[in-house]
Amino acid sequence: MSDTALSARHLWDDVCTVRTRGPLVHSITNFVVMNFNANVLLALGASPVMAHAREEVEDMAGIAQALVLNIGTLEPAWIESMKLALARGRARGIPVVLDPVGAGATPYRNRALAELFEVGAPTILRGNGSEIMSVAGLAVATRGVDSNAASDEAVGAAQRLATATRGVVCVSGAVDHIVDAQGRHARLSNGHVWMTRVTGVGCSATAMIGAFAAVQPDAWRATTAAMALLGVVGEVAAERTQAAGGGVGTYQAHLLDGLHLLDEATFLARLRLS
Amino acid sequence: MSDTALSARHLWDDVCTVRTRGPLVHSITNFVVMNFNANVLLALGASPVMAHAREEVEDMAGIAQALVLNIGTLEPAWIESMKLALARGRARGIPVVLDPVGAGATPYRNRALAELFEVGAPTILRGNGSEIMSVAGLAVATRGVDSNAASDEAVGAAQRLATATRGVVCVSGAVDHIVDAQGRHARLSNGHVWMTRVTGVGCSATAMIGAFAAVQPDAWRATTAAMALLGVVGEVAAERTQAAGGGVGTYQAHLLDGLHLLDEATFLARLRLS
Amino acid sequence: MSDTALSARHLWDDVCTVRTRGPLVHSITNFVVMNFNANVLLALGASPVMAHAREEVEDMAGIAQALVLNIGTLEPAWIESMKLALARGRARGIPVVLDPVGAGATPYRNRALAELFEVGAPTILRGNGSEIMSVAGLAVATRGVDSNAASDEAVGAAQRLATATRGVVCVSGAVDHIVDAQGRHARLSNGHVWMTRVTGVGCSATAMIGAFAAVQPDAWRATTAAMALLGVVGEVAAERTQAAGGGVGTYQAHLLDGLHLLDEATFLARLRLS
Repeated sequence: MSDTALSARHLWDDVCTVRTRGPLVHSITNFVVMNFNANVLLALGASPVMAHAREEVEDMAGIAQALVLNIGTLEPAWIESMKLALARGRARGIPVVLDPVGAGATPYRNRALAELFEVGAPTILRGNGSEIMSVAGLAVATRGVDSNAASDEAVGAAQRLATATRGVVCVSGAVDHIVDAQGRHARLSNGHVWMTRVTGVGCSATAMIGAFAAVQPDAWRATTAAMALLGVVGEVAAERTQAAGGGVGTYQAHLLDGLHLLDEATFLARLRLS
Repeated sequence: MSDTALSARHLWDDVCTVRTRGPLVHSITNFVVMNFNANVLLALGASPVMAHAREEVEDMAGIAQALVLNIGTLEPAWIESMKLALARGRARGIPVVLDPVGAGATPYRNRALAELFEVGAPTILRGNGSEIMSVAGLAVATRGVDSNAASDEAVGAAQRLATATRGVVCVSGAVDHIVDAQGRHARLSNGHVWMTRVTGVGCSATAMIGAFAAVQPDAWRATTAAMALLGVVGEVAAERTQAAGGGVGTYQAHLLDGLHLLDEATFLARLRLS
Repeated sequence: MSDTALSARHLWDDVCTVRTRGPLVHSITNFVVMNFNANVLLALGASPVMAHAREEVEDMAGIAQALVLNIGTLEPAWIESMKLALARGRARGIPVVLDPVGAGATPYRNRALAELFEVGAPTILRGNGSEIMSVAGLAVATRGVDSNAASDEAVGAAQRLATATRGVVCVSGAVDHIVDAQGRHARLSNGHVWMTRVTGVGCSATAMIGAFAAVQPDAWRATTAAMALLGVVGEVAAERTQAAGGGVGTYQAHLLDGLHLLDEATFLARLRLS
């Protein structure tokens, strides 16, 4: 599939498939966003389950249709559980999505990521520019960490990382870039700056990618569809919130409303995909 | 008291008592729902406290008017703490409410439940059909787990479980069934399907039961009152949300608004109890 | 600076500075409020980070502009991490704000607080009357715990505590009192009773104080500014919520909206500072 062959209608089909099939997504994620991530998945029509004890993560990853790992609020026992779940997810062939929250912020997070990559690369990696550049430094040893990564630099890092992991990498920001090992590159320019003023929107994007990859076998297309939906919803929700005189509090609720109710016509009319 | 002797007015009296007395409810619950559960209890007029360290759970259960245990996002140290709190709660004679989240999903959860039941049966158990059937299999050894339990089958399991534990069992679903060891059986048919699209509504029902059982000594009536309030609120909140063009995000806020503000006339007019 | 020298305009300047500079606030806080606290900081324009593993807390406290510690949902490993972060924060000279949630409720919490104070006193301590009186009993050994502390008694305890710790102490309630070791005393009488019906509003006040103290070197003024903003927002949000027929659910969203959008004219017109 060439880049241009991916149309808005393909992506909307994937939204409908998630809504219809309601895939079970097993998340091992951070304490801050657990509630919002679960609500995002439910609004989308997916079925979230969270379990992190080493005593049950393999069993849970064994019944899920996708596995989502997120390294915020880490501690050693959680890394061990993520490794077990990652190994089980890969063995079963379900998509594994990794969110390297705060990669580069502390040496501990970098070591945790290195340990996870030793177990196996995720199917899909999603982070902001700095995080992706930090992970690229770890995984392909070509550069250090840049905490204020320019978008272009991050895309280069993402492409090298996609090649090295034979996977999909998404750099989210004002423009979201989704690249894969075959050289495909989708760019999405929807969204709203308020998405950075609600905690867990990025982490929820990662969870949504898990739900889409559970039902769409092309991981690059699934990632693009998830980010496309979130971007359009983020933009429509901001307009609705501002029209009512609201701010980032009501915006959070309107994001969930949009994931729940966004219709095809709005999606097709507003999507900016290239 | 026969089934029909329990009127809507009795249940509303219990709502008023919770609002007036503001019972202290100690919850040891899962990470995903802690925030929402606390907000549900506060909206209701109760006073939530959460503490899980073995160093303080007995002291906290020692000052609470009810104890709520929930096995989502379990890990071994939490099971130990739940056992300590359960023993203390039973010794003090306060109501103990157990939510067997995900019972049957993994062997670990089943073992955890078995360990809790060895310490002692809860006063009240609330779950969906599959969970209740799974627990019934553990506790009364009459059947296995059915993850798509039909309502009628689950009610049978609930009745056997209530007899075996000499307690109250609530099976929630499109119709909520509340049964006890004396053979009483209340059916509630309020609610809205969106209640399954907000994370923690079921867990919050369990927390609410704790608050009601703290002030109403008849645990079967207390459970019925809590489920009745939540069902009516869930239905009214859905209408209010839909009238404003909202979805499951604003619905979550409207659920809390309803728990806070629902009035007697609406409750009495809409309750479907049999 | 005498008490009367602190004007509403000074405090509004601090609000603007937080919004402009977006300080990085490292919180080690309880599971119940993590999500809401992060959203409060984001609504305010600050940048929250949460990390609690002993493997990284010192590194995270090493890059933050303020450190916030909160002892709800404690467990031993978290106390150890708080001690490490507290030592690092003090060594770097960044403000450290402590919220003694539930002080006096269990012996374990009291021991945890005593351990933290052995490492070093926080720059600022914020709690309700009972909590402050409990901590005063620990720290200055002059009185026991009173779980229904009258405001006046708590202010006396706060003043002794401020002197003993050479820090700032805030007793929040219907009137917020902010005192310091130099004898300054600010009183704020904004706010709304619904602030006690949303979980984590008090904990979020503490997190906000961290953000203000990160940009305003006078910790007493910073604390007063944070509490002033929250009080005015709480009052305006209640009016907006009630005008729309809402309750504590929509109120939570409106609190965040207000932190995001409150304007200077409203703040100056409504602030009740003495």
